[in-house]
Amino acid sequence: MASPSVDFARQNQQRFLNELKDLLRIPSVSTAPEHKHDVQRAADFVAAELRRIGMENVEIIPTKGHPLIYADWLHASGKPTVLCYAHYDVQPAEPLNEWISPPFEPAERNNNIYARGAVDDKGQLWMEVKALESLMRAHNGKLPINVKVIFEGEEEVGGESIAEYVRKQKAKLKADFALVCDTELFAPDLPTLCVGLRGLVYTEIEAQGAKTDLHSGMYGGAAPNPLFALIEIISKMKDAKGKVLIPGFYSKVKAPTAAELKAWKELPFNEEHYRKTEVGSKVLTGEPGFSVLYRTWARPTLEVHGMPGGFVAAGAKTVIPARASAKVSMRLVPNQDPEDIFKRFSNFVKKHTPKGIETKIKVWSKGPACVVGTDNKFVKASTEAMREVFHKETVFIRSGGSIPIVTDFQDVLKIPSVMMGFGLPDDNLHAPNEKFHIPNFHRGIESLCLFFEKLGKS
Amino acid sequence: MASPSVDFARQNQQRFLNELKDLLRIPSVSTAPEHKHDVQRAADFVAAELRRIGMENVEIIPTKGHPLIYADWLHASGKPTVLCYAHYDVQPAEPLNEWISPPFEPAERNNNIYARGAVDDKGQLWMEVKALESLMRAHNGKLPINVKVIFEGEEEVGGESIAEYVRKQKAKLKADFALVCDTELFAPDLPTLCVGLRGLVYTEIEAQGAKTDLHSGMYGGAAPNPLFALIEIISKMKDAKGKVLIPGFYSKVKAPTAAELKAWKELPFNEEHYRKTEVGSKVLTGEPGFSVLYRTWARPTLEVHGMPGGFVAAGAKTVIPARASAKVSMRLVPNQDPEDIFKRFSNFVKKHTPKGIETKIKVWSKGPACVVGTDNKFVKASTEAMREVFHKETVFIRSGGSIPIVTDFQDVLKIPSVMMGFGLPDDNLHAPNEKFHIPNFHRGIESLCLFFEKLGKS
Repeated sequence: MASPSVDFARQNQQRFLNELKDLLRIPSVSTAPEHKHDVQRAADFVAAELRRIGMENVEIIPTKGHPLIYADWLHASGKPTVLCYAHYDVQPAEPLNEWISPPFEPAERNNNIYARGAVDDKGQLWMEVKALESLMRAHNGKLPINVKVIFEGEEEVGGESIAEYVRKQKAKLKADFALVCDTELFAPDLPTLCVGLRGLVYTEIEAQGAKTDLHSGMYGGAAPNPLFALIEIISKMKDAKGKVLIPGFYSKVKAPTAAELKAWKELPFNEEHYRKTEVGSKVLTGEPGFSVLYRTWARPTLEVHGMPGGFVAAGAKTVIPARASAKVSMRLVPNQDPEDIFKRFSNFVKKHTPKGIETKIKVWSKGPACVVGTDNKFVKASTEAMREVFHKETVFIRSGGSIPIVTDFQDVLKIPSVMMGFGLPDDNLHAPNEKFHIPNFHRGIESLCLFFEKLGKS
Repeated sequence: MASPSVDFARQNQQRFLNELKDLLRIPSVSTAPEHKHDVQRAADFVAAELRRIGMENVEIIPTKGHPLIYADWLHASGKPTVLCYAHYDVQPAEPLNEWISPPFEPAERNNNIYARGAVDDKGQLWMEVKALESLMRAHNGKLPINVKVIFEGEEEVGGESIAEYVRKQKAKLKADFALVCDTELFAPDLPTLCVGLRGLVYTEIEAQGAKTDLHSGMYGGAAPNPLFALIEIISKMKDAKGKVLIPGFYSKVKAPTAAELKAWKELPFNEEHYRKTEVGSKVLTGEPGFSVLYRTWARPTLEVHGMPGGFVAAGAKTVIPARASAKVSMRLVPNQDPEDIFKRFSNFVKKHTPKGIETKIKVWSKGPACVVGTDNKFVKASTEAMREVFHKETVFIRSGGSIPIVTDFQDVLKIPSVMMGFGLPDDNLHAPNEKFHIPNFHRGIESLCLFFEKLGKS
């Protein structure tokens, strides 16, 4: 693994980490209007660094939502072109009282860096930037392949702006493949390529009963309760075993191939260990007859995330709320069409809305599942690069999460994505105490350096 | 209606109202720990006024929760003794953005005074205090009957401290009857005595699934969701028509008498008007075969008031929460035992808790229903007094709300309660834009003056 760019990266590990901490200090929570300015600040921070390391045509592109960042370096004539993707926005940090150290004050413990966005996805975005810097510095200001960068600030809220931009700027973003760093290793020290993602339809059902909040003593027995109505509706959506009961929900589901299912069985996965250390519940739930990996990677699901409305502070308030809502999402698998699923969902809600209640459905995000091919030179070079860094064969997995942009790259730009992610299963994504294992941050940078160097030689 | 005390009250209407506004400015929200000091301030304010008008032995009695206020004047030898009850604490004001004027800055509009607590119950407490002042001033510093005052600051959170105090201080609080001003007129200008109240069991079901919040992409299909578990449990508690399905829930229910049901039918009640103007929903709900008044006054109900947990801010967060809870209450009718009902409720929750979830139940308050007799001289004098002020016959109604202290007065002190209330059905109790119709504030004072003068002559 003699590589001048890897050498440079190793010599600059502490600086790279310190820079990442500065980025993590910016609370770029994309869903929170009060953090809009912070999201902009994060974009400015990243764009400035792209300029500093020598990337060209660096742009902060305003959108209806949060800005996109573009940059390129296109002087490797005859070499392939990569489109590097990552996102600089983060999930909300709530519940704040469960963080051991504050979410936007990065703290090191046990060789991990703790902060909201550490691994999802600022840490992995920074890997890409630092790999580009290392390559530039090691090759006299040149890159071994052509590079375009597109970073977004709306991944956690559906990514509408980048989806629109990709459709409008096909020529500008044209590349041979996309690099997406927003996934995880299957196990510590096990190099992993993610080749499938679930889709997502995230909705909020808004229910209205009386015109104003009412006293449950005076009106209990006569006034409709939108919170109870939501309970009635949602309880009918899924049975106790986890099977979704919306008619036609499973009709288009495409099962994984026999070869894929066989490979999943060979992965180092201990269900009991997963239950205890990752989930921490008494039992695991979900559809009988499917393994945990099958259920979370290749079966669609329906979850409730929160039910705003009524009285939710400590204590008792005897109110029948006028309005309440429920955040309900569905994860989709290949061949399920988000439009079709949303229509079935809406019809179901409409059909089961009790009398006296009016329901409306807001869509927060909507994107299909995606499975990417593995028989191309980009996948081959990336698996070789990771093998050299980790000294192990790379495994192919799917993820239960959703990265709608991968589908857009495939469908709109007609390019495959290489999903190289360096998170760990216990990194607490979207939860308190999110972390990134520091050695994986550095191994990610090294893997990307080798990957691009290999492609530059091919 | 020639009465020197009524004359005094009429000459001082503006001052009485201004004083009430001062009391309304104190945000004595008893359920909110951050308002503990304000609740104390409200107690101080009321006690100081009782002292000023000439009441004796005024005490602010500390409790485990919020203070009680006691006062008396016992020099009407041979005359009856009344125990005057009201409460100076209020409900939370949320949702704040639905108030036309701020909840703790009293505003006059259309001859109403708008503020949290205007009618429930500071306005009605102040009626009692101002009636006592008017009587004192009109009768050379004397009252026509013996008076004991007990005001509490925990009515909106279950009233534990007064319940305990009543049990411990039976002799001190001994009286011939209690006056409770915390109810409403059945219709504008229609003098009303409330003779029945529903009981209340207010619980919070706390559910725990995984040890920490999880990403619904990664774990959806394997991790238990406590929010969905609560939906499953609560959906089974009540059918679509409003019938509670907890086994044995209705087994002890005592129906109203035929005479009472006949009297209710004669009340000026227009269901369509009630639906449109008070509830404002498309239809009314509740058990078929029972009238609206029957359903809200004499049938037990079950409501959900709020479901804390998960992500409830604007936007989308793909979280499977580790913990969630549901505030669920039941209104009880005569002969339903709160302990028995709570036991049945707990067993039901336990039985229907899905695997992978642990549930615990917190009780926020618990008290039985109460029906008071109407064949005593106190009820007769009060109905006469109101007839003279309103020029109409008084009607007997029940309320669907709960005033547990009325049950305690009956069971522990062995005295009947006269529930004279001057609120209106559209006063927005427990809701935004709570109000008190200003003429009713003054008519309440006058009615109480005449009531006590009549008892003093009898």
